[in-house]
Amino acid sequence: MNSKEEIIIKMILSAWQNGLQGINKTLSVLSDEDLNLEVASGKNKAAWIIGHLAAVNDTLFKILELGEKVNPTYERHFIQGDAGIEIPSVSEIRKYWEDTSTQLNKKIAELTTSDWFQKHSLVSSEDFDKEPHRNKLNVLMSRTSHLAYHSGQLVLLTKRK
Amino acid sequence: MNSKEEIIIKMILSAWQNGLQGINKTLSVLSDEDLNLEVASGKNKAAWIIGHLAAVNDTLFKILELGEKVNPTYERHFIQGDAGIEIPSVSEIRKYWEDTSTQLNKKIAELTTSDWFQKHSLVSSEDFDKEPHRNKLNVLMSRTSHLAYHSGQLVLLTKRK
Repeated sequence: MNSKEEIIIKMILSAWQNGLQGINKTLSVLSDEDLNLEVASGKNKAAWIIGHLAAVNDTLFKILELGEKVNPTYERHFIQGDAGIEIPSVSEIRKYWEDTSTQLNKKIAELTTSDWFQKHSLVSSEDFDKEPHRNKLNVLMSRTSHLAYHSGQLVLLTKRK
Repeated sequence: MNSKEEIIIKMILSAWQNGLQGINKTLSVLSDEDLNLEVASGKNKAAWIIGHLAAVNDTLFKILELGEKVNPTYERHFIQGDAGIEIPSVSEIRKYWEDTSTQLNKKIAELTTSDWFQKHSLVSSEDFDKEPHRNKLNVLMSRTSHLAYHSGQLVLLTKRK
């Protein structure tokens, strides 16, 4: 019999994997040309959204204390909106998404039940004592909603609604 | 000190509330005319998405064993895609969203920690014994991602990207 903690971790990891798979599925049906389209008139290009999701994945190495980022500079463009760096190509963006997802999942698989309920790196020990929900599991859950949010936009470029 | 179960429930309920608030915020800035627009060319109208989210909320009364649906027929249009019923007006859709959210939150607030880890109504006792993650909490978590998915689409009609 699994403990409630183990059940919960399984639920949240499974939702996370579903989120990643949703993006992968969309990426498999969109061409590089499609990815250069805006998801709606005047809105973000699909490629930017993929780069943004990859860059957010990349921040998780530090937040979840899993090691070094895959790429230390891409977040300037994809999170901070810094126009000063050279914009990666669509194939570089695809690779960035693939690399961050794969390496993140490899690291995540090593976390123990106890690790998931520990504080993440952006919260102080004092705050965490008062707000124990600010744990690593909560970060992954919040990023799963973030994936879904953009997944709903990317799907607008496919035949689905 | 809270138990891990209580911490988890707080995390998931808080994510759910954030999801509802995201939709409410978008609804507050979109006019009825805006809601009649497609979120992207050839895709669903915003009003349909709101009706769809409300109808999905409405299914939760049965799935989480909280009582009767707010409206027994709307799901035919907003979930099953049945063209045979009269389509509700935008103001009826707004009210449907408001009513389902409010009444659902009222009922949800009465659930105990133990209730959340019980099976939902769509899974059999036999399957639940083997797959204890198919509990009520997991349903709410999955619906939170669903809210985020469509929230990302609705936001395309606002000034945000």
